[in-house]
Amino acid sequence: MNFRPVVSILGFLVFGTGVAMLLPIPFSLYYGDANVTAFVFSSLISVGVGLFFWLAYRKRNLDDNTLHAKEGYLVVTFGWLFCSLFGSLPLLFSGTVSSFTDAFFEVISGFTTTGASIIPDVEKLPHGILFWRSMTHWLGGMGIIVLSLAILPLLGVGGMQLFKAEVVGPTKDKLVPRIAETARLLWGVYLIISAAETLFLLLGGMTLFDALCHMFATVGTGGFSTRNHSIGQFQSSYIEWVVIVFMFLAGANFALHFRALRGNLTAYRKNNEFVFYSTIVLIGIAILTTLNIAGNVGDASTSLRLAAFQVVSITTTTGFNTANYQTWLPSAQVILFFLMFFGGCAGSTGGSVKHIRVLLLLRTGINELKRLVHPKAVLVVRHNGHAVPQEIIINIVGFMVLYAGVFLLCSILMSLVGLDFITATSAVAATLGNIGPGLGSVGPWETYAQLPLLGKWISIACMLLGRLELFTVLVIFSGAFWRK
Amino acid sequence: MNFRPVVSILGFLVFGTGVAMLLPIPFSLYYGDANVTAFVFSSLISVGVGLFFWLAYRKRNLDDNTLHAKEGYLVVTFGWLFCSLFGSLPLLFSGTVSSFTDAFFEVISGFTTTGASIIPDVEKLPHGILFWRSMTHWLGGMGIIVLSLAILPLLGVGGMQLFKAEVVGPTKDKLVPRIAETARLLWGVYLIISAAETLFLLLGGMTLFDALCHMFATVGTGGFSTRNHSIGQFQSSYIEWVVIVFMFLAGANFALHFRALRGNLTAYRKNNEFVFYSTIVLIGIAILTTLNIAGNVGDASTSLRLAAFQVVSITTTTGFNTANYQTWLPSAQVILFFLMFFGGCAGSTGGSVKHIRVLLLLRTGINELKRLVHPKAVLVVRHNGHAVPQEIIINIVGFMVLYAGVFLLCSILMSLVGLDFITATSAVAATLGNIGPGLGSVGPWETYAQLPLLGKWISIACMLLGRLELFTVLVIFSGAFWRK
Repeated sequence: MNFRPVVSILGFLVFGTGVAMLLPIPFSLYYGDANVTAFVFSSLISVGVGLFFWLAYRKRNLDDNTLHAKEGYLVVTFGWLFCSLFGSLPLLFSGTVSSFTDAFFEVISGFTTTGASIIPDVEKLPHGILFWRSMTHWLGGMGIIVLSLAILPLLGVGGMQLFKAEVVGPTKDKLVPRIAETARLLWGVYLIISAAETLFLLLGGMTLFDALCHMFATVGTGGFSTRNHSIGQFQSSYIEWVVIVFMFLAGANFALHFRALRGNLTAYRKNNEFVFYSTIVLIGIAILTTLNIAGNVGDASTSLRLAAFQVVSITTTTGFNTANYQTWLPSAQVILFFLMFFGGCAGSTGGSVKHIRVLLLLRTGINELKRLVHPKAVLVVRHNGHAVPQEIIINIVGFMVLYAGVFLLCSILMSLVGLDFITATSAVAATLGNIGPGLGSVGPWETYAQLPLLGKWISIACMLLGRLELFTVLVIFSGAFWRK
Repeated sequence: MNFRPVVSILGFLVFGTGVAMLLPIPFSLYYGDANVTAFVFSSLISVGVGLFFWLAYRKRNLDDNTLHAKEGYLVVTFGWLFCSLFGSLPLLFSGTVSSFTDAFFEVISGFTTTGASIIPDVEKLPHGILFWRSMTHWLGGMGIIVLSLAILPLLGVGGMQLFKAEVVGPTKDKLVPRIAETARLLWGVYLIISAAETLFLLLGGMTLFDALCHMFATVGTGGFSTRNHSIGQFQSSYIEWVVIVFMFLAGANFALHFRALRGNLTAYRKNNEFVFYSTIVLIGIAILTTLNIAGNVGDASTSLRLAAFQVVSITTTTGFNTANYQTWLPSAQVILFFLMFFGGCAGSTGGSVKHIRVLLLLRTGINELKRLVHPKAVLVVRHNGHAVPQEIIINIVGFMVLYAGVFLLCSILMSLVGLDFITATSAVAATLGNIGPGLGSVGPWETYAQLPLLGKWISIACMLLGRLELFTVLVIFSGAFWRK
């Protein structure tokens, strides 16, 4: 194990978090918040600590060879943890929340683009804090795109090897140059989409502050809002449709957007995962619209808009809402619950299982059905026209087994700390899938505030595990990882 | 497709069902029920129709080669359907239930060893009907043992190839001799276990009638009782412990019991699935006992007995109960809900996913975790000391995908007909897993009577699909199945 580059990179990430903390300050000043000093202090501490470790351990990091798989897992897991740790300083220093647990919960929920909140009344919060909170989604989203398209494919995590050649062509086996290259290309796309959504939201009459905060939460598929009743509170169909479109884009593979921006629009159509993702979303919208009409949620156009919003929000794991879907028909809630497990596409900012895994497993299931009729037939699972090696299917199975195991174990733990069946299972589904709101006491118009202390820490663990595709975190706990 | 032997065998099965209908008559006579004629008529019809098709289509069946995989699927699926169809005649003729749906529901619930009931007050039923209803569990159990150890391994359904050589040594590729041989050996074991339980129940003070009925439902892991509050109503710890032990035995592989009866007791210890099954059951009992003590369900020994009963009853998919677990702590209910998916061992009368599949997938997941640390290592999943071919893992994955898909789809359908979240999902889990009672409105002290008509038919479909390991039924709906 080569700890030096790990410490150095973690230092760099904390440093970056500290620099980012300066961005809310203009809004704090403009709106006359009393918490400018909280940001300055938090930033100074983070920049100072980060800079120290970055530079002190930097020397050997010039050699790209020093960072391999094992170090990669450490950087990713502790990167998210340390950024959240330092990122919670502004909340603590400003007195926004009184306990460390709550501050850490809120900020790791931000950086993991979950959007689960422990703040019952966000409208009381100072603007600077709201801005920072939403910005953690955007920063987390940047991290996750690079993670999923540049790091996980090389580490061979849960079938993500499929995306090895997605962005930078011939695979380089070294992490650093690959990350740098992927980041450069994809963050450009990320910025363009971010700018576009901000513009469209401004055109809808949002203030720059609200537009930026909601853009952060949309593009990062996070879900924090500046309003207690989320996007629905703006009472604007235009804004809702804008957010629907950008949530959908954020839930798709950014490598496809990259190609589309270079003029290759057929990339979408040729990508099996994107087609599957669109199909699931459209079917979901069609069914929920019908159910909403049947359940007297509103007239046809309202039913369609509310259904489209909620289906896209849950499927992409954003977690925004425009209605309290807990008042909808039970069947609508069951469908939304199951959609929680589909998640975004690989290479998106969305979380949960991911459409690619569901699709490949589905194809495996169909093949096995065919095999019964033609026992001698050679049947391979195909993706984008290529045969998928059996190893990758097994790899995905490994991921699903761990996902189910963690879901089961955490649901039991959640019920042990006193939550009812629906709250326990949906809270785990919503945090493990990085969605945010669930059902029951953690429904769309509720928060995680009333959870017992242990319940909050289980949620924190779920958010981190889910965001980092389980393996990345779990592998660190294995004995073999630490052995020479 | 060679229909002649299929029709002949189906005729034979219906004939057998008709003969079995004569067995409740002594009890009807003894208890002075008014429904003896219902049994006589039902039996005459079934024997007549069965005999006709059996003999009329029998001729070519002398050649064993005529029955292969495709015909096997038809025999199995339609065998369960037709036996249930004719088996529901006594309920209709006696006026026990008024609608065909209810009669068919009750009897297919019996033959699939599910134990879900649409009769709110079973204590009002004539003894003959109660006897017949319970006996369908026992007959269904005989069918399922042969199906799972003699037929499915040859058809290659959902990983069951693992059990090819379990009973009759070198695999014969022809269905009929294998079935006959397996049936001969295992039904002997089945009879011995049945006789033993009946004896123990008689010693506990049960009448012969009650002892037989509950033995039928235990050994077949069915769950029908002659009392509204199931086994709990006998108020006897002795009886409860007897049933716990025999439910546990019925949920284990009968091929192991076969070896044990021949003196090879180490067979249990050497069998990975049995060890895993015992471990899951013991862990479940330990946790639920603790929860019951914490939840003031009773003193330590009562808590242990109730926990042991419910854990074994749910895990083996029997569905008996000694307490209304819906009044237990939410955490206990969450654990019971998840246990619904483990099911019996392969080669038992238990349903659901089966421990062997859970175990092999778990080992796959652990291997994938190891692979991250040692990317070059060759890791194979082992079972009973042998490497499991990757094809079998993929096969199991296919099964799990279909199971999840059917669970998801049917849960949505159930919620569409108006059931709430918990009732809809647990009713599907309980029927697809052939358990019987679920949670919510289909909880242990409730029945399926209040389900809307469509809900009952969805349940019927789930019971059949679950019992026949999905594939066997689904394959018949594929276009390729019917093509030349």
